[in-house]
Amino acid sequence: MTIVTLTTDFGLSDGYVGTMKGVILSIAPDVTLVDITHDIAPQHIRQATCALHAAAPYFPPETIHLAVVDPGVSSDRRALVVRTARGFLVGPDNGVFTLFLADAPNAECRAITNAEYTLPHISATFHGRDIFAPVAAHLARGVDMAEFGPRITDPVMFSIPTPTQQPDSSWLGCVLYADHFGNLITSVTGDLLQRIGDVEITMGQRRIAGLYRAYAQAAPGELVALVGSSGRLEISIVNGNAAQILGLGPDAPLILRKRQGIDSKLQEA
Amino acid sequence: MTIVTLTTDFGLSDGYVGTMKGVILSIAPDVTLVDITHDIAPQHIRQATCALHAAAPYFPPETIHLAVVDPGVSSDRRALVVRTARGFLVGPDNGVFTLFLADAPNAECRAITNAEYTLPHISATFHGRDIFAPVAAHLARGVDMAEFGPRITDPVMFSIPTPTQQPDSSWLGCVLYADHFGNLITSVTGDLLQRIGDVEITMGQRRIAGLYRAYAQAAPGELVALVGSSGRLEISIVNGNAAQILGLGPDAPLILRKRQGIDSKLQEA
Amino acid sequence: MTIVTLTTDFGLSDGYVGTMKGVILSIAPDVTLVDITHDIAPQHIRQATCALHAAAPYFPPETIHLAVVDPGVSSDRRALVVRTARGFLVGPDNGVFTLFLADAPNAECRAITNAEYTLPHISATFHGRDIFAPVAAHLARGVDMAEFGPRITDPVMFSIPTPTQQPDSSWLGCVLYADHFGNLITSVTGDLLQRIGDVEITMGQRRIAGLYRAYAQAAPGELVALVGSSGRLEISIVNGNAAQILGLGPDAPLILRKRQGIDSKLQEA
Repeated sequence: MTIVTLTTDFGLSDGYVGTMKGVILSIAPDVTLVDITHDIAPQHIRQATCALHAAAPYFPPETIHLAVVDPGVSSDRRALVVRTARGFLVGPDNGVFTLFLADAPNAECRAITNAEYTLPHISATFHGRDIFAPVAAHLARGVDMAEFGPRITDPVMFSIPTPTQQPDSSWLGCVLYADHFGNLITSVTGDLLQRIGDVEITMGQRRIAGLYRAYAQAAPGELVALVGSSGRLEISIVNGNAAQILGLGPDAPLILRKRQGIDSKLQEA
Repeated sequence: MTIVTLTTDFGLSDGYVGTMKGVILSIAPDVTLVDITHDIAPQHIRQATCALHAAAPYFPPETIHLAVVDPGVSSDRRALVVRTARGFLVGPDNGVFTLFLADAPNAECRAITNAEYTLPHISATFHGRDIFAPVAAHLARGVDMAEFGPRITDPVMFSIPTPTQQPDSSWLGCVLYADHFGNLITSVTGDLLQRIGDVEITMGQRRIAGLYRAYAQAAPGELVALVGSSGRLEISIVNGNAAQILGLGPDAPLILRKRQGIDSKLQEA
Repeated sequence: MTIVTLTTDFGLSDGYVGTMKGVILSIAPDVTLVDITHDIAPQHIRQATCALHAAAPYFPPETIHLAVVDPGVSSDRRALVVRTARGFLVGPDNGVFTLFLADAPNAECRAITNAEYTLPHISATFHGRDIFAPVAAHLARGVDMAEFGPRITDPVMFSIPTPTQQPDSSWLGCVLYADHFGNLITSVTGDLLQRIGDVEITMGQRRIAGLYRAYAQAAPGELVALVGSSGRLEISIVNGNAAQILGLGPDAPLILRKRQGIDSKLQEA
């Protein structure tokens, strides 16, 4: 039994997602369908790749991940199927798999060109239904990667925001996105935090000294920094919505410095 | 294995949908459940029939479609089970299957009267749980249509907005609903557009000359008209929200005229 | 085949729920997953227990109900697995199962301590993924309750709001929560209403005389009281949103009195 996951910016109010599921189940009745999210901000490719990339490691390695955030539908952007060690990826060639391709630069990427595996009529506006859903379903039925189309070596990738070291040896990072709780997920990895050691974080007027290991260590309403469940630095307000209260969102800058001569609150797991 | 789809105005915040799924799986553990949408505007029967009618053709023909938008729950409105070439329909007899019944005027419709196939206690407010979910589940288990109740020939249908030709030979259509992206889905079919030929569309102060085939042909922010994925004329703003920007929604009128002596942007698929 | 239901305050915008499903399906590929709701207000434990407790009776009795609303994640709050006649419960020991434990005070409760049944690395912020999802999956595969950890007899329960009788023999109840339609679900059970008999309800400035059996008995826009689908008194506005129009929400008080010498609208089902 194969799992097909779905990540889109379609929302849940129109039946677009249900339609894709109908297409998949018509071709591959035995797959298990799992929604990652359909609330990606319209056309926000970076948010989609972050959400899917955080979830994918928790699925069986043969899972098929379908991602359709597709502002260029029906332009000459290619349609893509990719095989990685973390599963198969199906979606538009517009950067939506950037984080996966950065992990696995030699992943087998193919442009979907074989009309045998798409719906007979391809609309100009809904390739999720007409191309990506049927390809994912045929993949679930065991169709070989090579059947879908020619190998390509230049899939589209956007530049991943990564922290840069400044002349004064501080690090400049940024917010990637805010989650449902208002936690600000940043471009700063746990690895970099370990390198910096005892850290002080500045965001606008606010300064956070040291990391907590868990929300429960701080008081309700307190502004805290910690390494979140995806391995990235998160800025949170305990039992509150940091994004709303701080008025910050994607691309907001943050500066990290090593603290001097102050005891750390940092606790190892 | 049978698919049961669900379309309701219950939202996802209360567990009402989960409860219906529990009822279905208690009776028919092997069905595959697929949500079409639960974000129908409360009591908006027309939106529900549009959403389900657009999705249903992409499901296997033996699929059971459950639709519960039910302002008249516990009045004397009948409960309905319908067999069409596109699958079975289960829901209140209030017009929620209008578009299916217009396609198939001789579809077998039955009023659900056999208490053997409902829950033992029928509440006054939640027939989705107490009547429609168990009937759908028994249908999935192979219970014959005739078991549920007597055949009826007068199911409730609302009038479907269809474009009308005006004395000056223009056509008057209207917006049916706005989707998640703000695209305005209209009462105008692709067939009528072909009949008109090179078209000019007027909505309030705005005029659109000709159709695009795809969003990608136009510039971001441009107001465009095209035949959308459901085969209907859609009015969109590329990478923007037409419903919000134009301030238009259901029932907003639009006028279509044949253009005179101007080259068409219309492109055939 | 086992059903695992999920109730969280995670929302659907981030992939947190999808991640938990990946964990469950990696361990127990054959389970059927059903969402109860993921729109519990952040950290609102009472709403979660109400939603799950209303839905659970409609699932097969061997169902596993996973509930993760967890403001104390990574504090010293225990992780819980419970066996009841209505199914298994898995989640934090913070009161989220209060209504189930009130029904079954002798239910077998165990603190999850056996690291063999959690993910190898347990994050500080996402025990839904790292502890509760894998425990639910192992339970679905047939692991014995006793394997997860020691029996405990003092699970956390919050006080359940129950109506209290006043010196003037009226009853003081309160709103528990508002549902998606704006119906105000109260602490008053159908049993108490039967005891009171012909009832008059006062909420702020508004007075409701008698109960309706169904919305359809009243006119659109009318303020009505009736016993809802969960067996509780609900205050509703027919085809309207009572919570918004009355400006009332959780904990709003209501007073119930027996009416004197007036004919009842109460109708028996």
